[in-house]
Amino acid sequence: MVNLIDNEVLQAFATYATIVVLKMLMMAPMTAYFRITRKAFANPEDAGVHGKTPEDKKKMIKTDPDVERVRRCHQNDLENIVPFVLIGLLYALTGPDLSTALLHFRVFAGSRVIHTVAYVFILPQPSRGLSWLVGMITTLSMAYRILNTVLLL
Amino acid sequence: MVNLIDNEVLQAFATYATIVVLKMLMMAPMTAYFRITRKAFANPEDAGVHGKTPEDKKKMIKTDPDVERVRRCHQNDLENIVPFVLIGLLYALTGPDLSTALLHFRVFAGSRVIHTVAYVFILPQPSRGLSWLVGMITTLSMAYRILNTVLLL
Amino acid sequence: MVNLIDNEVLQAFATYATIVVLKMLMMAPMTAYFRITRKAFANPEDAGVHGKTPEDKKKMIKTDPDVERVRRCHQNDLENIVPFVLIGLLYALTGPDLSTALLHFRVFAGSRVIHTVAYVFILPQPSRGLSWLVGMITTLSMAYRILNTVLLL
Repeated sequence: MVNLIDNEVLQAFATYATIVVLKMLMMAPMTAYFRITRKAFANPEDAGVHGKTPEDKKKMIKTDPDVERVRRCHQNDLENIVPFVLIGLLYALTGPDLSTALLHFRVFAGSRVIHTVAYVFILPQPSRGLSWLVGMITTLSMAYRILNTVLLL
Repeated sequence: MVNLIDNEVLQAFATYATIVVLKMLMMAPMTAYFRITRKAFANPEDAGVHGKTPEDKKKMIKTDPDVERVRRCHQNDLENIVPFVLIGLLYALTGPDLSTALLHFRVFAGSRVIHTVAYVFILPQPSRGLSWLVGMITTLSMAYRILNTVLLL
Repeated sequence: MVNLIDNEVLQAFATYATIVVLKMLMMAPMTAYFRITRKAFANPEDAGVHGKTPEDKKKMIKTDPDVERVRRCHQNDLENIVPFVLIGLLYALTGPDLSTALLHFRVFAGSRVIHTVAYVFILPQPSRGLSWLVGMITTLSMAYRILNTVLLL
């Protein structure tokens, strides 16, 4: 059995990629929590579990500001964390220094935790905007190294 | 030419990753089918193809419950299948037993097919919820093995 | 330090994967541009930066057709570019000819640039539909080769 994770940059990448993907996955139970506590569902069959009378259920098919906020945060994770993992894997394969790679991975992971806290707890701007920007710059920096190292058009 | 898919766990991963991504891609034509049959479009230029008079076209810019249901199913795929493939690749690189890896991949693929059927055909809950949960647990189990094997913070 | 990008197909893949992911990432600043110029925000704390009186801010929490169009384009990228990168990596690992691989990568990248232009500048259909279809066929062709080469169920 071949074990491809035999170098430290790939180990660091696997660690941080897993952490940020887990953070993203946690948005789903958070959405469920807000849907249940706010009684705001998208599907009639979900409202059915929590409402008793048909009128009750119908009222629960609605949007709620808190639910929509968590969903926007989840969407932002999809738009930023997935590109980080895709670009980060290729970046790790270009053979960067471990310390440089760790810097990128740590800054990105930190920026996304701050982004989620700023989004869900409605911290005043520009906290959310800046945390997004820091994550974006990290991904762009890795993309730059990939194109600089392996460009084959 | 290097061929990196020279071990069976990676071959199994490539097979199941491709299958679940293809399942996800099929949501786009399904959305198109419902948009056309329900005459419910998001873009005026799309309605223009199916409506004749300007009034016809304007009426077709609307949301439809069936279209929105398929779109939510597609979104749920993005939120769960993409993480599975990202985590699954790193998991495959940690060198698990083939039988354990196959168990993870098969359970996940099965859970997502059931999830789509439960969503689109509106099966009563908790069928959709449980199929989602089974897929989530599979991904979490692989993430646990990655962190347990390669943790480098 | 192992450098896994030591073959040309992987170099070509890394190049085009990075290019299309960068294209996708650019949709976020484009959305921000339209949100600011159209004064149409999703979060009260964002409107607060651009509005002065509480009434001003409240009016800015709205949807705008141009903002929604860019967001749909971004969503379409997530639904198509992410699968391309996931499938493309596995495809590159099956050891295809460089010229065949380059053909796939170039056609996909071109189709997505045309798709974005057609979406944002509202070109008449079927320009957007066809560019989407060409990208989809490219991904399906790579998926076919993966299953044909490594199928292990």
